[in-house]
Amino acid sequence: MKKLGIALCLLSGICCAQSPESFAPASTNVWGAAYPRVDASGKAEFRIKAPDATSVKLNFWSNPKMDMVKQSDGYWTATTPPLVPGFHYYTLTIDGVEVSDPGSHSFFGGGKDASGIEIPEPGSTYYLPQDVPHGAVREIWYSSKVTGTWRHALVYLPPAYDAQPKTRYPVLYLQHGGGEDETGWIKQGNANFILDNLIASGSSKPMIVVMAYGYARRAGHTDPDLTGKPFGSPEMMKAMEEMSAAFEADLTQALIPFVDATFRTIADREHRAMAGLSMGGMQTFQVTFNHLDMFSYIGGFSGAGGMAMMRTDQKPDLKTAFNGALADPAAFAARVHLLWIGVGTDEPPMMHAGIARLHDTLMEAKVQHVYYESPGTNHEWQTWRRDLKDFAPRLFQK
Amino acid sequence: MKKLGIALCLLSGICCAQSPESFAPASTNVWGAAYPRVDASGKAEFRIKAPDATSVKLNFWSNPKMDMVKQSDGYWTATTPPLVPGFHYYTLTIDGVEVSDPGSHSFFGGGKDASGIEIPEPGSTYYLPQDVPHGAVREIWYSSKVTGTWRHALVYLPPAYDAQPKTRYPVLYLQHGGGEDETGWIKQGNANFILDNLIASGSSKPMIVVMAYGYARRAGHTDPDLTGKPFGSPEMMKAMEEMSAAFEADLTQALIPFVDATFRTIADREHRAMAGLSMGGMQTFQVTFNHLDMFSYIGGFSGAGGMAMMRTDQKPDLKTAFNGALADPAAFAARVHLLWIGVGTDEPPMMHAGIARLHDTLMEAKVQHVYYESPGTNHEWQTWRRDLKDFAPRLFQK
Repeated sequence: MKKLGIALCLLSGICCAQSPESFAPASTNVWGAAYPRVDASGKAEFRIKAPDATSVKLNFWSNPKMDMVKQSDGYWTATTPPLVPGFHYYTLTIDGVEVSDPGSHSFFGGGKDASGIEIPEPGSTYYLPQDVPHGAVREIWYSSKVTGTWRHALVYLPPAYDAQPKTRYPVLYLQHGGGEDETGWIKQGNANFILDNLIASGSSKPMIVVMAYGYARRAGHTDPDLTGKPFGSPEMMKAMEEMSAAFEADLTQALIPFVDATFRTIADREHRAMAGLSMGGMQTFQVTFNHLDMFSYIGGFSGAGGMAMMRTDQKPDLKTAFNGALADPAAFAARVHLLWIGVGTDEPPMMHAGIARLHDTLMEAKVQHVYYESPGTNHEWQTWRRDLKDFAPRLFQK
Repeated sequence: MKKLGIALCLLSGICCAQSPESFAPASTNVWGAAYPRVDASGKAEFRIKAPDATSVKLNFWSNPKMDMVKQSDGYWTATTPPLVPGFHYYTLTIDGVEVSDPGSHSFFGGGKDASGIEIPEPGSTYYLPQDVPHGAVREIWYSSKVTGTWRHALVYLPPAYDAQPKTRYPVLYLQHGGGEDETGWIKQGNANFILDNLIASGSSKPMIVVMAYGYARRAGHTDPDLTGKPFGSPEMMKAMEEMSAAFEADLTQALIPFVDATFRTIADREHRAMAGLSMGGMQTFQVTFNHLDMFSYIGGFSGAGGMAMMRTDQKPDLKTAFNGALADPAAFAARVHLLWIGVGTDEPPMMHAGIARLHDTLMEAKVQHVYYESPGTNHEWQTWRRDLKDFAPRLFQK
């Protein structure tokens, strides 16, 4: 009856979850966890029992990073200043080991199942479930000849997909960031609710959204031994390029054909978009500019420009960059219906400067594009939720 | 470019993931994690860097529980004896705090996102992805008037669901255990692959499988304060019953109508089954015997008999138990097409004895049923995978 015991403990956990004052358990908590909890100003309180530990730290991956304080009852606690609204990754470091908080659900980031906390944004409902028709998110598994493995992806189908079995839909391929995986846009990003709300209000065309796993290794490929190679070394860059090329091949040769064979898509470039955040934005630029016969809408969320942009602080030469696709702005505007780039105003200076530099270069060259800055947000999911909210209504309107 | 840094670290992590000898990273690991790793005999090696910790323990929730050993390089290591095949939950205890292993994906169990490790079962492929038509798993959100909240569930649609848009299907409601959630049957149980393989071989009828979130609290309900109340106290039992009743109401009044309105189901008792594991098995008995007008197939996997069975070591009185539905075995057999109970031979004695006692009682009373024992497995997912493999082919054959 161990499981019953667990159920009962869980139940009693719920009963301890009463919150005094205005603090309430975060929506990202597991059932019954009283901590972390959040107040109306965005302050968050953390608590973990660790009577034998000598040091417990709270690490928001953006900020803050705080030492937790040991109380006489063996609990360690910390209260943050008011936090920026949105989803924040965090971990705890207990006696030097970085681990997840058992009170939080896990969210895949930084290459592991990490903790996260949702800070509500007062007055914002665009990324929350509303009483509107809901699309469905599907898990799919496809066998990839590129990687020689079964691969998992998530697919959002718009609300009317089942009710109107003759209708075909355009497709947005939407990628997560480095260290994240294909679950990020649903679990952290609420992409399904954003689309539900945009479609219900008539702002967005109904569309299918495909979220792929952004890492790939070609069948039979052995990763090089990078031990001792410095960050950014030629060997590391080569390994990154091989991984990027394998992803590009998997997406274009395995996933897209599978999606077009499995779902009622409109399988042409006029009805296919790709966007991604951070690493996913770089992948988007690589994939779309190498396959402009397959895509006509392009979005880079806090990450754009592809591998070429990573290597230099100089402005890209638009005569040669992106396979020369931007060399003739008029021809580009006629061919690509949307080139969209965005960044949060509070992102790290290098990231912000990189995207802004691309924007300036495009402006000078008179390349038609959209540039969006998310006010007050960092290299985090609230930026990318806002990006999707601005980006999606611009798709498939031609 | 922080995310890029993460991506690169991740990449270099991959490159360290070479395994000497016959140990290979577990299939349950995150991308690039070299540990834990498993050999052909089922031994598992664990490793975590914790140079400042004074104690690190490895806790398999079944067994073993081991002290990890500190090495001179700051890593703590442990190697288990050969483990029983299947999925095992585990956690690490670092200086007294129970946490997840960053090398493992997380799996919801014990009321938190815990670690898990898959030990392959030599020669078994029934729960693995094969080159057969694959069904799709959908995430759904439905607004429940019972709980006053949006609720999340997973739905498996059989392979031909989209291709044959006129076909309607029977439905199995399949519940997780206490401390787990609606993701368990897919992530830990591989229910989708089990069904794919059974349907492909012709062993099972194509069916829809709905996996609900097994906890519910009625709208406006405030949990009682159980502080200081002993385990099993009347107050706790009452709270459990309220939670069970709320779940029963949500399933029958909110979820089933939503599923029947959303998917192409055959919406009658002849084509509706329910099964669950552990707590989910008890819920199944409660829901189905209270609603025999809605269900005609019933399965209890390592958990059966409902609330009544939890309170006594005596054999249930079949004249009165289960709403008296078993008092007339012939009438019951005519009405309920399948009553299926199962348990692993290596489950804790109390659990095994409880299920075996129900089996004995049913035998003596000549109540038609199926009893299955999973050889050599504990109160764990390999038992429940085997249960589903035996149970599903018996459904909807009338």
